[in-house]
Amino acid sequence: MVNGIVLPIKKVFGLVDAKISVEIKDEGRKLQGRLVAVDEYLNIHMEETTEFIDNQRGRSLGTVVIRGNNILTIAPVM
Amino acid sequence: MVNGIVLPIKKVFGLVDAKISVEIKDEGRKLQGRLVAVDEYLNIHMEETTEFIDNQRGRSLGTVVIRGNNILTIAPVM
Amino acid sequence: MVNGIVLPIKKVFGLVDAKISVEIKDEGRKLQGRLVAVDEYLNIHMEETTEFIDNQRGRSLGTVVIRGNNILTIAPVM
Amino acid sequence: MVNGIVLPIKKVFGLVDAKISVEIKDEGRKLQGRLVAVDEYLNIHMEETTEFIDNQRGRSLGTVVIRGNNILTIAPVM
Amino acid sequence: MVNGIVLPIKKVFGLVDAKISVEIKDEGRKLQGRLVAVDEYLNIHMEETTEFIDNQRGRSLGTVVIRGNNILTIAPVM
Amino acid sequence: MVNGIVLPIKKVFGLVDAKISVEIKDEGRKLQGRLVAVDEYLNIHMEETTEFIDNQRGRSLGTVVIRGNNILTIAPVM
Repeated sequence: MVNGIVLPIKKVFGLVDAKISVEIKDEGRKLQGRLVAVDEYLNIHMEETTEFIDNQRGRSLGTVVIRGNNILTIAPVM
Repeated sequence: MVNGIVLPIKKVFGLVDAKISVEIKDEGRKLQGRLVAVDEYLNIHMEETTEFIDNQRGRSLGTVVIRGNNILTIAPVM
Repeated sequence: MVNGIVLPIKKVFGLVDAKISVEIKDEGRKLQGRLVAVDEYLNIHMEETTEFIDNQRGRSLGTVVIRGNNILTIAPVM
Repeated sequence: MVNGIVLPIKKVFGLVDAKISVEIKDEGRKLQGRLVAVDEYLNIHMEETTEFIDNQRGRSLGTVVIRGNNILTIAPVM
Repeated sequence: MVNGIVLPIKKVFGLVDAKISVEIKDEGRKLQGRLVAVDEYLNIHMEETTEFIDNQRGRSLGTVVIRGNNILTIAPVM
Repeated sequence: MVNGIVLPIKKVFGLVDAKISVEIKDEGRKLQGRLVAVDEYLNIHMEETTEFIDNQRGRSLGTVVIRGNNILTIAPVM
């Protein structure tokens, strides 16, 4: 059970310095950028962030900290 | 009471490596895929993920980590 | 105060093996079934689950685990 | 600070056995009934519950357990 | 870091007995009244509460306990 | 892992006394002001706060405490 507890977060820890896509709940909105830091609540510190609304590229946001509870999904960008 | 505390999560722990369907709250949306890891908050690491919107098959999403608090239900796919 | 802390959950613990109705927040939707397990977060493991939308019987869902924070109310079905 | 931490919940603890009105977030809906038990998360066990939608009396619900995080306000009914 | 952890809540602790305005998330609604007690979750016990909807004065609500997680902002009323 | 746990919050701690923009979830609304204090839950105490609705400057709000769970993003204002 100890292994099971840490694993989904470990997957995200392994994405530090990689490009990720963070989907925001209820908004049809994604933030893509380089993952700088993540904690156990899935709070995210991202740099070089770009907004996507309904899959259309939007504004460049630069440095952003995202509150974990408002994140729906996190995925690597290939 | 100790047994009662761990049981609903244990049901999900037993689904690791099986195909599951995760229903997202407020969105009429489901993500189906192979459960790779789950923790005590029901954060989910899924592979070979496919999106279903109003029960219509959507995009293939590959690797996804889902934040537990935004999950409504988790069910095995028979 | 110690008694006060455990009581609302104890009421639900007493419903294990009984038929319950779980109302989902913001959705006009209920899930009815047999309560198999519940934990301190009110995460629910249910079997023989049937969906009700605006009080109309819907699909049979079988085994479902429901995330506690997205539950509005839990009530016994008489 | 110790006093400050317990006080809002203590106010609700003092309403056990009294008639209360629980307002649900985002729904224009209230549940009124006799408060049987409450815990530190403001999970509520209520008996003789009646639903009010936009201040119109609705169905009688009997025994209900309400998840604390989906409660907006709790108030005594005079 | 220890100071940083307690400070935003300390600001609210300093408003006990003063008139405050509590903005509810997603509702265009505010509750104004005298702050009687607050805890570490920002649960609020308020007296002499008045409702404001879209900045129009509404009903007098008297004693109200507000669940912290459904509060967007707390501000002093000058 | 210890470093990973504290980092996204540390980024915000480093913005104390600087001008920040706080985006509220689900509302197309931002609050800009000087960050006075922040805690581990990302609760924010802000001064000289100005509201922006759909990127239009709105009211001056002065002193505001924002509940962390209702914050979507925090970013420095250049």
